[in-house]
Amino acid sequence: MKLFHKRYHQPGTRPGELAEPVSDIFSLDLLDYDATSISVKNQIDVHDCRAFINNGNVTWIHVQGDPTHDALLTLAKGLDIHDLYVEDVVNSGQRPKVEINDEQLFVILSLPVLNNNQVHIEQVSIFLTQNTVVSFCSGEFNPFQEIVIRLQGVVGKLRRRKADYLFYNLIDTVIDYGFPLLESYSERIQEIEDELLNTADKNVLNQVHKLRRELLLLRRRLWPQREVINEILRDEENNQITPETKLHFRDCHDHVISIMELLETYHEMTSGLMELYMTSVSLKLNDVMKVLTIIATLFIPPTFIVGVYGMNFDPQLSTLNMPELQWKYGYIAVWCVIVLLISGMLALFKKHKWI
Amino acid sequence: MKLFHKRYHQPGTRPGELAEPVSDIFSLDLLDYDATSISVKNQIDVHDCRAFINNGNVTWIHVQGDPTHDALLTLAKGLDIHDLYVEDVVNSGQRPKVEINDEQLFVILSLPVLNNNQVHIEQVSIFLTQNTVVSFCSGEFNPFQEIVIRLQGVVGKLRRRKADYLFYNLIDTVIDYGFPLLESYSERIQEIEDELLNTADKNVLNQVHKLRRELLLLRRRLWPQREVINEILRDEENNQITPETKLHFRDCHDHVISIMELLETYHEMTSGLMELYMTSVSLKLNDVMKVLTIIATLFIPPTFIVGVYGMNFDPQLSTLNMPELQWKYGYIAVWCVIVLLISGMLALFKKHKWI
Amino acid sequence: MKLFHKRYHQPGTRPGELAEPVSDIFSLDLLDYDATSISVKNQIDVHDCRAFINNGNVTWIHVQGDPTHDALLTLAKGLDIHDLYVEDVVNSGQRPKVEINDEQLFVILSLPVLNNNQVHIEQVSIFLTQNTVVSFCSGEFNPFQEIVIRLQGVVGKLRRRKADYLFYNLIDTVIDYGFPLLESYSERIQEIEDELLNTADKNVLNQVHKLRRELLLLRRRLWPQREVINEILRDEENNQITPETKLHFRDCHDHVISIMELLETYHEMTSGLMELYMTSVSLKLNDVMKVLTIIATLFIPPTFIVGVYGMNFDPQLSTLNMPELQWKYGYIAVWCVIVLLISGMLALFKKHKWI
Amino acid sequence: MKLFHKRYHQPGTRPGELAEPVSDIFSLDLLDYDATSISVKNQIDVHDCRAFINNGNVTWIHVQGDPTHDALLTLAKGLDIHDLYVEDVVNSGQRPKVEINDEQLFVILSLPVLNNNQVHIEQVSIFLTQNTVVSFCSGEFNPFQEIVIRLQGVVGKLRRRKADYLFYNLIDTVIDYGFPLLESYSERIQEIEDELLNTADKNVLNQVHKLRRELLLLRRRLWPQREVINEILRDEENNQITPETKLHFRDCHDHVISIMELLETYHEMTSGLMELYMTSVSLKLNDVMKVLTIIATLFIPPTFIVGVYGMNFDPQLSTLNMPELQWKYGYIAVWCVIVLLISGMLALFKKHKWI
Amino acid sequence: MKLFHKRYHQPGTRPGELAEPVSDIFSLDLLDYDATSISVKNQIDVHDCRAFINNGNVTWIHVQGDPTHDALLTLAKGLDIHDLYVEDVVNSGQRPKVEINDEQLFVILSLPVLNNNQVHIEQVSIFLTQNTVVSFCSGEFNPFQEIVIRLQGVVGKLRRRKADYLFYNLIDTVIDYGFPLLESYSERIQEIEDELLNTADKNVLNQVHKLRRELLLLRRRLWPQREVINEILRDEENNQITPETKLHFRDCHDHVISIMELLETYHEMTSGLMELYMTSVSLKLNDVMKVLTIIATLFIPPTFIVGVYGMNFDPQLSTLNMPELQWKYGYIAVWCVIVLLISGMLALFKKHKWI
Repeated sequence: MKLFHKRYHQPGTRPGELAEPVSDIFSLDLLDYDATSISVKNQIDVHDCRAFINNGNVTWIHVQGDPTHDALLTLAKGLDIHDLYVEDVVNSGQRPKVEINDEQLFVILSLPVLNNNQVHIEQVSIFLTQNTVVSFCSGEFNPFQEIVIRLQGVVGKLRRRKADYLFYNLIDTVIDYGFPLLESYSERIQEIEDELLNTADKNVLNQVHKLRRELLLLRRRLWPQREVINEILRDEENNQITPETKLHFRDCHDHVISIMELLETYHEMTSGLMELYMTSVSLKLNDVMKVLTIIATLFIPPTFIVGVYGMNFDPQLSTLNMPELQWKYGYIAVWCVIVLLISGMLALFKKHKWI
Repeated sequence: MKLFHKRYHQPGTRPGELAEPVSDIFSLDLLDYDATSISVKNQIDVHDCRAFINNGNVTWIHVQGDPTHDALLTLAKGLDIHDLYVEDVVNSGQRPKVEINDEQLFVILSLPVLNNNQVHIEQVSIFLTQNTVVSFCSGEFNPFQEIVIRLQGVVGKLRRRKADYLFYNLIDTVIDYGFPLLESYSERIQEIEDELLNTADKNVLNQVHKLRRELLLLRRRLWPQREVINEILRDEENNQITPETKLHFRDCHDHVISIMELLETYHEMTSGLMELYMTSVSLKLNDVMKVLTIIATLFIPPTFIVGVYGMNFDPQLSTLNMPELQWKYGYIAVWCVIVLLISGMLALFKKHKWI
Repeated sequence: MKLFHKRYHQPGTRPGELAEPVSDIFSLDLLDYDATSISVKNQIDVHDCRAFINNGNVTWIHVQGDPTHDALLTLAKGLDIHDLYVEDVVNSGQRPKVEINDEQLFVILSLPVLNNNQVHIEQVSIFLTQNTVVSFCSGEFNPFQEIVIRLQGVVGKLRRRKADYLFYNLIDTVIDYGFPLLESYSERIQEIEDELLNTADKNVLNQVHKLRRELLLLRRRLWPQREVINEILRDEENNQITPETKLHFRDCHDHVISIMELLETYHEMTSGLMELYMTSVSLKLNDVMKVLTIIATLFIPPTFIVGVYGMNFDPQLSTLNMPELQWKYGYIAVWCVIVLLISGMLALFKKHKWI
Repeated sequence: MKLFHKRYHQPGTRPGELAEPVSDIFSLDLLDYDATSISVKNQIDVHDCRAFINNGNVTWIHVQGDPTHDALLTLAKGLDIHDLYVEDVVNSGQRPKVEINDEQLFVILSLPVLNNNQVHIEQVSIFLTQNTVVSFCSGEFNPFQEIVIRLQGVVGKLRRRKADYLFYNLIDTVIDYGFPLLESYSERIQEIEDELLNTADKNVLNQVHKLRRELLLLRRRLWPQREVINEILRDEENNQITPETKLHFRDCHDHVISIMELLETYHEMTSGLMELYMTSVSLKLNDVMKVLTIIATLFIPPTFIVGVYGMNFDPQLSTLNMPELQWKYGYIAVWCVIVLLISGMLALFKKHKWI
Repeated sequence: MKLFHKRYHQPGTRPGELAEPVSDIFSLDLLDYDATSISVKNQIDVHDCRAFINNGNVTWIHVQGDPTHDALLTLAKGLDIHDLYVEDVVNSGQRPKVEINDEQLFVILSLPVLNNNQVHIEQVSIFLTQNTVVSFCSGEFNPFQEIVIRLQGVVGKLRRRKADYLFYNLIDTVIDYGFPLLESYSERIQEIEDELLNTADKNVLNQVHKLRRELLLLRRRLWPQREVINEILRDEENNQITPETKLHFRDCHDHVISIMELLETYHEMTSGLMELYMTSVSLKLNDVMKVLTIIATLFIPPTFIVGVYGMNFDPQLSTLNMPELQWKYGYIAVWCVIVLLISGMLALFKKHKWI
């Protein structure tokens, strides 16, 4: 996940300026349905969309990838989308937000995509007006495939109800992508925790740091979604969202809060892991030092003793000069002293629970 | 306690989808009472419940374990419980919450169950409508046995009053399970504290970490209960809860806050314990290093001295070559120097309070 | 101070259940006064209180220790005290709170008692109705002796005004016991601070930890008192407290905030002390290591040198075999090298400011 | 960035006192335009401005650097700017703020200027009244050059709309200077992160500290800008800002929040880096200690053994005196013991994963 | 700065009790002025003040030091100051606060006085009623000398306007004393920062700790002033403060917030300094250990080698007994081995960037 993710213009640039597309992924799919019929147009040309708008059915246009400026402006013009919203769609890396006016709702959400244990964030923008929903999703991954299948399958609530219920389903889907993500994080934390109490090598440190960093960035990217759902729930002026759909949004609100709380908890937990790591390192150091101290303490004094009897004072010269060398049991006495010394120290270490 | 506890559906799944039961524990008990009479039906079939609902008495249906979808939907239909509430009952691991409409109250609570010093959380869902209370509790443990006994015993307030007072009693009971839990935590903290100041081994570290982790998870699971009671107290529209019962809910609110404050305090305390542990480890390291330093400092210089007189310069060759070897008191002088050196250093150590 | 202080019932117990008295300390004193006369009844029987209630004078009943259930219920009945309040009086360890209804005020406060440098918390419950004040204080220590003396002394404001002013005086007294407590804490912090910068032994660590723990617990116990005074100030419905007395409560509010701010500051300070301790330990370790390094660095190389000339190569055998041993000034040269080596290292150490 | 940046007067000085200019940079440019025509006057004398004010066109006066008191007071008088605002313009280092009255808006903003990887903050003050905008920018760098170019180029929205839109464009420009700054910070953090996991030398420590310090100061300086935009959005009384421009200010609000959130995240991240650094240092210490321990443990015991056979007990004197010296394979046996000892310890180290 | 600064009475003492003066510093100065005339009375007797009150001019009475109870009560009676305010004036160490009623304003502020790099806090109490301002300042230092001079100098706004403007000027002056204080703190932080990166001795630790402690205490003492100014700004009932003066109070509000933000920033910064210190100590320890490890690693193995050839196995006895001693180039070979060993290790150290 990038530290800095926002696409921005040089300060002083004209507001509403569109950023250049970063990839040539671009497809436009259209679903037009009511309870009785459904028509699906994949890879449709943007100019062919017009025919479906305001035909009484619910129309859902999904734009995947980076639309060309041309396609985007055509769409915006047909549906009366404000310049600033169009800019937000293109300049990806926006903060999740909702813009509500009397007849329209415009929502920007962050979609966390988990790919080979790498998380990245795609921007999903959803626009609701009358009977039409337009959704934009940057990148290659289309998060709404499940919904396309549900729409084409058995006729359920989703087919029978209006565009606001589709709008809710899209938002709910994007938000619910947080759950598998968090589950994978919980497993990673668990793994690191297990590893950490066994080994304390540099690799674990890197993992903890990476995890903390990811959670920090993720939290910032997902945090505003809570406010988005809140504002939709609180809004009284806009008449697009029916009370029944609002009840579902309350449920969605619970999900969004659960996700934030889990993220918060995991973030706190990784701080705890870092501390645990530091303490483990100190403990290891302690162990290393104990070994050194034990070895040194056991052998330095005996080495001194044998050094004494390596001195070249000549016992022949004077009886005061190292008479021990002349004793019959001198050598054995030295060994006894050494053995006693070492045993004494071992006993002392045992008493202090060092060994 | 699991890091990730929520049962969730794949993003894009139909709202209201029910999760499969995870165990085959399932029993349904019914109590139907007023001040004069009481009838208890254990292991009753769900279809037999209908007869008791709306008969003027207070009816309490308690569902333990994982109800079958069939039983659940029958019950929901009979009592007019919304699909989304039913989903919440089944998909355990929900955040505590309350849903209030004109005639119904639906509460989800977290029940901390302490089993062999292991804590796990069960989900309790309680539904109040008219004169009927339906309670669901996941897992094997039935927290309401005490209340069943009270209902069957001397006729008291609980028997004389309406379903809202039973509703309060159930909630109060679930929340009060926090107190014995916290008391057991206070004992664990106390034990770890005592242990920690004596030994600083890896085992204590693991205990502190586990404790902190549990308190962190527990706090998150119990925290929203405060808001639940708050909302019940604040609610003005719903007419189910009488003012007298609200007075009792105020008391319950005090309990919920006490529990949260204790959890908060214990959590802060375990952070303090981790710090204390780290400091203890450092202190221990200091002690180890002091021993090493004392030994090395005492013996390295004498070892050097005896090394000097182990050199093979021949005093016979020249009077400048190690004349000390020829002195009468040479050997004794060396010992004196060594003893003085060691004594001096010991004195120095004493002065610096190392020994 | 205990980690867990609340007396609670098993979950599911009947609300309003009274806990058994924990001690047999129990006395009941009554003061009945107006501006002109005062009558004091010590150790009065609870049934004799009735005569004084509603006689137009201010009646103050003070209950010290653990009242018997019988005495308590008699009193509660005579003064129309709600069951739940009676439960709160007996089940000590309650969170400070205020309950206000049209004609009554019921306040629970925490009284910190300092005894031989040990702090413990007693629960004070004060009940105000019409012209009667009833105060309960757990434990042996009666905090209101000063007020009894003032009432019996010169006729002042306290005698001339109504029960609400007495009520204020009792609350203010309980809260002001925080000041001498905090003063004693400030002295303890000061002492530990002085000690810490000199020695960094285990004893200081224990003191810092104990202090932090006490402040943490104390903060939790006293914190809600702020809200209590706030609610009394904000209350508009109850007509017991006159505007003039409210002005005094504003003053009391200042005290309560001052106490909380000091507690907060002291708590932050002890966290600082823990950090300071850790840093001191590291510094000490650094000093120890420096000594070891200096000794080892000074003596290990010379020991190697003298080791060289202790080798038994025979200079007689070949002129390449340790010819130094044959030199006239060999021994002196070795000493010179050693002295130079040691001096050089000492100079280096001085340059690096190690000695 | 300076720790203390505010220019202040001695306490007790007359309010409205102007600080002396700190540099002689001072230029005054004027642009007067409507949709059809534009006139640009660079380095205009302050007295010549009057002719342009209230001529129906939008008039923009930009003051760069430190204006003389004389020029400033002339301008203030001509446009009815309050004394206190004039003081704020001159006494740079003000906190960002907005002052709104019926006909005027006065905004102070912080402009972060990035110069050779050094950040400093310039104060930008913008004043809006009727059709006139006056902008002041301390220092040499003029942040509005892009806007001057846009005004002189193709006739766009900026030319067609009123002074409030210019006002918005100036504010938006100043705020957007945060984005390139944050991008450069994200790169610095990235670099330090990479460096840190490889080396842990003092240089990296200084960098982390400097970074943290800069982010802390920057956060404080930019934080109030959020409140500034908020107040402009909330304001209902002032009629200068049209609803259409307010929509743009909402966009600007998003930017300001994004910037603050990034700053917050980066600040948290640098705290994490400091911790990571500390842990890395501990790890390094651990490695160093392991090397020492391995060397010492491998060689201290063999050194003791060879010391034993360096003792001068005379095997000739008694058969108990070091008979090993007389053995045929004595020397080889010693070597075998030493090799075995070292191999054993190496095996032990391998088992403990030290090598 | 003292940890505990509040002068308090024993719990239970009569509210309004006055503390005894702690020093005999006491002087009372009076200034009576309007736009045309001014009369200054230094060291005036309190009874002579009456003549000036309510004479239509603005009357400013400044009381320095500890007033006698007698003087204070005379003044209070003449100006109708409430008992509790008088108590607050005498019992210094109050929390800053404002008391507003219909005709009076009573403000308590904390004046930080910097004396020889030692900060202490004096209490300033200012009372405004009708046309009279009474200011009390504990201690010796009179913060208002500058204002006395301004009043006696050129006739400006201060002379032409009413008592509320004088009131504002006094408050503004007290608050602005925060700026030079913070500037001196910024210099101290800077100095410590520079020192810290060079040396990490105990002295710096003490400085950092002292700084943090001072900032913590200072923050607590100054924090409530923000609320004081806020309340004056928000107040609608009191008619003493004119709208024009309120505009000045807004400016004062900015100052108070700037000061708090700087204090907050400096406090965060000193926490960073403590961490930096700890990390520096660890780095130093690392350096020390490296030196030890290098020395030990370089010399312990060669010492072992030379120890080997110091063994007394007799090469004459058997050809297997240390035949090396008999070799012609044995001694030189040993030296070669040693030199190779040391060079090898030096190369290894260089590779690991230890030297």
